[in-house]
Amino acid sequence: MDEFDLIARYFAPLATVPGAFGLKDDAAIIPARPGFDLVITTDQIADGTDFFPEDPPHTIARKALRVNLSDLAAKGAKPEYYLLNLALPRPAREEWLTEFARGLLDDQLQFDISLLGGDTSATEGSLSISVTAMGFVPQGRMVRRSGAKPGDAVYVTGTIGDSGGGLALLKGEASGLSEADRAYLTDRYRVPRPPVTFGAGLCDIAHAGVDISDGLIADLEHLASASGVGIVVEGEKVPLSPALKALWGADTLVRAVAAGDDYQIAFTAPSGLRGPFTRIGQVRAGQGVSLSVKGEEVVIMQPGYRHF
Amino acid sequence: MDEFDLIARYFAPLATVPGAFGLKDDAAIIPARPGFDLVITTDQIADGTDFFPEDPPHTIARKALRVNLSDLAAKGAKPEYYLLNLALPRPAREEWLTEFARGLLDDQLQFDISLLGGDTSATEGSLSISVTAMGFVPQGRMVRRSGAKPGDAVYVTGTIGDSGGGLALLKGEASGLSEADRAYLTDRYRVPRPPVTFGAGLCDIAHAGVDISDGLIADLEHLASASGVGIVVEGEKVPLSPALKALWGADTLVRAVAAGDDYQIAFTAPSGLRGPFTRIGQVRAGQGVSLSVKGEEVVIMQPGYRHF
Repeated sequence: MDEFDLIARYFAPLATVPGAFGLKDDAAIIPARPGFDLVITTDQIADGTDFFPEDPPHTIARKALRVNLSDLAAKGAKPEYYLLNLALPRPAREEWLTEFARGLLDDQLQFDISLLGGDTSATEGSLSISVTAMGFVPQGRMVRRSGAKPGDAVYVTGTIGDSGGGLALLKGEASGLSEADRAYLTDRYRVPRPPVTFGAGLCDIAHAGVDISDGLIADLEHLASASGVGIVVEGEKVPLSPALKALWGADTLVRAVAAGDDYQIAFTAPSGLRGPFTRIGQVRAGQGVSLSVKGEEVVIMQPGYRHF
Repeated sequence: MDEFDLIARYFAPLATVPGAFGLKDDAAIIPARPGFDLVITTDQIADGTDFFPEDPPHTIARKALRVNLSDLAAKGAKPEYYLLNLALPRPAREEWLTEFARGLLDDQLQFDISLLGGDTSATEGSLSISVTAMGFVPQGRMVRRSGAKPGDAVYVTGTIGDSGGGLALLKGEASGLSEADRAYLTDRYRVPRPPVTFGAGLCDIAHAGVDISDGLIADLEHLASASGVGIVVEGEKVPLSPALKALWGADTLVRAVAAGDDYQIAFTAPSGLRGPFTRIGQVRAGQGVSLSVKGEEVVIMQPGYRHF
């Protein structure tokens, strides 16, 4: 099986739009959509940090895709296409590829997107996967990090820290957890739940938005810095799952807000909104992000993941 | 230096268009350009195949970019933007990064393009670089692989096989070459010369086009197969550099047409055209690609590079 057979067998069936040319050309086409901006983002996932080589191939595929879909959701964009760059250790195993492609297909159907192109090569090193995702927003309406205003409320989707809890378990952190809690947390690590459908409407309500990948506090710091404002997070309002509380007990909040890999959305908008999200704080004049619990400030030593 | 400092210092200065938001947001924007299609392509370069870790960082950067620019050129697209995915072995070395960013900047200025976004992470493995390049063609005018017609002439830009010769030298193939010839060939391996300016006008003259990355014969086979035609290459017309002939002697043609990594363009168009390209053969009814020298067919055992 050379790379042309491999692409034809596993990936061409995923390229369902005309502009992908069945992955049989040098490039793909995105037709102009007057009145819309194309929003584009790219993220790679790394062996040992974002996934483990022994993880089910279909969860690796879905995580590679979803860490990008969360960026589009945080920008108010409806996803449409993705590119896949895959560096595969030799030999390419058919069973692995079949399951990997099935994971992509499942998510394509769930999120109504298509593979548009990519690049597959063999590597002497470890498995490496980059995805580039593209979607559309009405012209000039992308939700920026820089639009937060003093007086805005700060909201998050989903629950925070579950993925970090799952990673801790997979790295061997001891726990007396039930099988159900363990399964819930490791699943959240392996298959993030970015709010894709909700995100596509975010440009109608949000002043600013960011996806939570480095850690809630760290990503809010990016947003606060880009907007030239300060943010107060009321710790007791941060949504935490029962499974995570069972794992981390009294440390749950401080570990959850620094854990990263959530792929939920934090956004600022007028206060008083109701929807599939939780109000966790407030934007104020000033700078930086502070975390309080019942009015007492909590100090976070390492607010998010750092690569170097 | 964490990845945010690294991005701010080395890569943000390369993001010169408004839609890149100075690399300070989760995603970038490409404004709709009515009447044009966006053409998008992605290619990764691999340590030990496409470059060597000890290569000058600025040549690694330029190769990563140019292997993508050649795809756009072969499609008749004028390049505009690129995304960069970088997996860097720890520790990130400042001198290396400075030189790498300088290579990108040099090529941005030469080709009038801008960095639009990307992703930087640390890896325990080897250096890995993916670039996604984007450009525009007038709507519906992308040069496909599938448009070749019997009676078309087949043309190539540049000379063929130089990069393969450079790679052979870097892998230790013995030669009595002059220093000038050795430098010429290794430079062609490290820094391909895709015909970017010429390519942007290709949609006005070409019926079909492909970039030569796997090898001249292999890539023409892709084009012939996509078009449902056969191609005859007249070996004595394939442009070969004096340096390559000095290296490979009587074997030059058969090695050059299978070497790959040329990043020149092969295209089919009406015969009788003159320009910065060479006529090397003819499209005919049938299938497959045959290579002849003075009317005698030459058999190529391994027509191009295979990853698996």
